[in-house]
Amino acid sequence: MHDPEEIDIGKNVLEANRISAEHNRKLFAEHDILAVNLMGPPGSGKTTLLEKTLKLLAGLKVAVIEGDIEGDVDKKRVLDAGALQAYQINTYGACHLIAHQVEHALEHLELGYIDLLFIENVGNLVCPAEFDLGESAKVVVIGVTEGADKPLKYPLMFHKSQAVVINKMDILEHSGCNIDELKGNIRKINPDIEIFEISSRTGEGIEGWAEWVKGQVNG
Amino acid sequence: MHDPEEIDIGKNVLEANRISAEHNRKLFAEHDILAVNLMGPPGSGKTTLLEKTLKLLAGLKVAVIEGDIEGDVDKKRVLDAGALQAYQINTYGACHLIAHQVEHALEHLELGYIDLLFIENVGNLVCPAEFDLGESAKVVVIGVTEGADKPLKYPLMFHKSQAVVINKMDILEHSGCNIDELKGNIRKINPDIEIFEISSRTGEGIEGWAEWVKGQVNG
Repeated sequence: MHDPEEIDIGKNVLEANRISAEHNRKLFAEHDILAVNLMGPPGSGKTTLLEKTLKLLAGLKVAVIEGDIEGDVDKKRVLDAGALQAYQINTYGACHLIAHQVEHALEHLELGYIDLLFIENVGNLVCPAEFDLGESAKVVVIGVTEGADKPLKYPLMFHKSQAVVINKMDILEHSGCNIDELKGNIRKINPDIEIFEISSRTGEGIEGWAEWVKGQVNG
Repeated sequence: MHDPEEIDIGKNVLEANRISAEHNRKLFAEHDILAVNLMGPPGSGKTTLLEKTLKLLAGLKVAVIEGDIEGDVDKKRVLDAGALQAYQINTYGACHLIAHQVEHALEHLELGYIDLLFIENVGNLVCPAEFDLGESAKVVVIGVTEGADKPLKYPLMFHKSQAVVINKMDILEHSGCNIDELKGNIRKINPDIEIFEISSRTGEGIEGWAEWVKGQVNG
């Protein structure tokens, strides 16, 4: 795995990604779009969070790019929940989105009619953090059911994100998770990160998170 | 991303992995070791399952290879729980183990004193399924809290595994997961897979799973 040629190719992949990410970033700036890269492990509740959040963002023109290995179920879910535009990327096996896939997706959206773009990444607590998509902010969604140690075991995503949404607070007492330990571990990795404690199912805490998102759009 | 040279390099990586995996498989056969590649998303409870399982495998000589991005907490946990030998692999950012890392780890274990080797992969529901480590069986661990749709969204790991351990059954009623739908989705991807419904926390169902493991060792 340490063949010099492979390392060069690795650099080329990251360099190609950087060029596409810069192109995306320029498009977002030109069209005054706030782009949020929504990341987190499978089943942490990213799509459900989007569904609930969309309902609180009336007045904003919101689009969603969905990243999944296969299928377009999530695209339908966010359109049903009120997204004005949505595009589904299928990675066919790859565990993260790359900037070029987003670049291609943007060709299918009407950028002049978007205030806020959510890019829901593939469910994975590792690799998505390594690939800049040109976004304005990175947000990580985790569930209390995943345990308090996860920020220490998977630090990069927490280190790079502006906000973390702690989901499934409605089953905190059944999860065995010590919420203070979880928040302490998050702050060890990233002292400045915004932390939201929510339940996508009951709606608890979603308003505070939605207000933060609106603040980012208007800020 | 479609440069022919990159595709060649991708082939070389997989070919190098195949050679190391075959070497591991030969070592396991020579020493009569059953090697189980334990996979699943972050926080699904792989390490806790190992801790509880180890206590039920008295009479077997069990070793564990732990795969984590950073740290050696899990190695200590399985040694405390009764593993006779353990070795920690750190991937430093990579989201899955490769066969060469296991090949290296095997040099640090006394292979003549192992009946059963668990290889706990990095927490990830995608990439570990693509890299053969030379193991005898693949097992995927998921939690009911991750939702019933996950086998359809991340099919490869379920397709390739001999068994799936559905964890966190103690909080099924709070999880919102329809267990019949989850099992149905697993069987859609892999009709022959063994399914165990357990709780690593309460110990519910662990004995049936441990019996299956023993049967694999003696089979």
